Amino acid sequence: MRIRLDLAYDGSDFHGWAAQPGLRTVQGELAQALATVLRVPSVEVVCAGRTDAGVHARGQVVHADLPDDLGAEAVEGLVRRLNGLLPGDVRVRRAAVAPEGFDARFGALWRRYAYRIADTPDAVDPLHRSHVLAWPRPLDVEAMNTASALLVGRHDFASFCKQREGATTIRTLLELGWTREPSGVLTGTVRADAFCHSMVRALVGCLVAVGEGRRPAAWAGEILRAGERSSSVTVMHAHGLTLEEVAYPADGELADRVLQTRAKRTHDG
Amino acid sequence: MRIRLDLAYDGSDFHGWAAQPGLRTVQGELAQALATVLRVPSVEVVCAGRTDAGVHARGQVVHADLPDDLGAEAVEGLVRRLNGLLPGDVRVRRAAVAPEGFDARFGALWRRYAYRIADTPDAVDPLHRSHVLAWPRPLDVEAMNTASALLVGRHDFASFCKQREGATTIRTLLELGWTREPSGVLTGTVRADAFCHSMVRALVGCLVAVGEGRRPAAWAGEILRAGERSSSVTVMHAHGLTLEEVAYPADGELADRVLQTRAKRTHDG
Repeated sequence: MRIRLDLAYDGSDFHGWAAQPGLRTVQGELAQALATVLRVPSVEVVCAGRTDAGVHARGQVVHADLPDDLGAEAVEGLVRRLNGLLPGDVRVRRAAVAPEGFDARFGALWRRYAYRIADTPDAVDPLHRSHVLAWPRPLDVEAMNTASALLVGRHDFASFCKQREGATTIRTLLELGWTREPSGVLTGTVRADAFCHSMVRALVGCLVAVGEGRRPAAWAGEILRAGERSSSVTVMHAHGLTLEEVAYPADGELADRVLQTRAKRTHDG
Repeated sequence: MRIRLDLAYDGSDFHGWAAQPGLRTVQGELAQALATVLRVPSVEVVCAGRTDAGVHARGQVVHADLPDDLGAEAVEGLVRRLNGLLPGDVRVRRAAVAPEGFDARFGALWRRYAYRIADTPDAVDPLHRSHVLAWPRPLDVEAMNTASALLVGRHDFASFCKQREGATTIRTLLELGWTREPSGVLTGTVRADAFCHSMVRALVGCLVAVGEGRRPAAWAGEILRAGERSSSVTVMHAHGLTLEEVAYPADGELADRVLQTRAKRTHDG
């Protein structure tokens, strides 16, 4: 029986999602809590977006396969029981038996991240300092949006990806844009079918250079077309980044989506 | 020369606003940073709302009197220099020479606090756990608003105040109401000319009892009329409470307001 869990976490004190021996990770904490609650030796958990160290999540989605002799009643009270065991920086928001064909990673249609920047003293909120980057110079939101528009669409994002041998860096960037919140915080929304490693933070680094006026908006397009990683693009700090939402197709189309994604062999991030 | 500073802080690691020997307080940190920046032996800082241990602020207002031989140029760059010295959990958002007659405490027209509660697992956000109370049972926002309406107005709030000898407990509650945010978080807005000690947290404790269905809405009115502190009203946890805003009259009316407030001898909180 496969279950779906929806998670939120403060990534500050985690070495990212992926379990690593001797390090505190979200996957490690969750797998251990599930095993304890279900009284099984171990549980494998698979997520939609493998967040890096320091990256947060409000809408992380996870699946786990439970032993078949555990009935659907094992899901009852699972939110309460897991949250009773888990530390306060990771919370399970929902738990349910997954629909037929559900796969948190390969079934996802898109992932949406937010990158938050406080670029004036007035916008810096100590209560949000764990997930909003304080930036010392004001940013021009219009210039950043002009540059962002040049990156939207299906492209080879090799210039913004840590290259892994044999892996494609072609992605469909569905949305990239910046909004000035009433609080003064600048929020970037980045939505794509999938991301390669550190892609969002490299995109933001490119756009911040434009926002500061150090580069013209057209530079973002030049970087994209260059097709290889450039040292002039900064990978921004992890703590401004939050995985906000993962979308899946309707239940009846889940199996098709998984086949299609596996065929593309996309590597999500 | 008097200056006005606007402050925000995460109260989690402070023993409240008021300086106390050997304890980490907002007043203590700010006074020390000001003295260092201005190269004076000490600076007295007076605030609009003396927040308790664990209470946060986004809109705290402070005044401080600087030695007369420091000209208005001492204020230039003060935000940057103070924030360079202060720890990350307290930030100066604005600094300016105060208008004639300004007094952060006695000049205030009203103080507005917010109390935030996540009453479902879905609404609990680990990124906001420092300033949103997680509550284990769902709350009825309509019942809480019905009860809140019974408390608005000019009343003796002795039932919600820690009594201090000789101090009045008459306050004008200008606004008290609850809103369900899109995130699912329940936000209570409490605005009054001034508050006595722990008054907001006692009001919220009364209203949560109504929201849970343990008490009828009319009970809030009964508690108010009882005129003395009741053990049936819980003083809620400090960490859900944030001082959001302090309002002052127009510059020309500041001196009159201070005289009027001092005459009432109100004790702000």
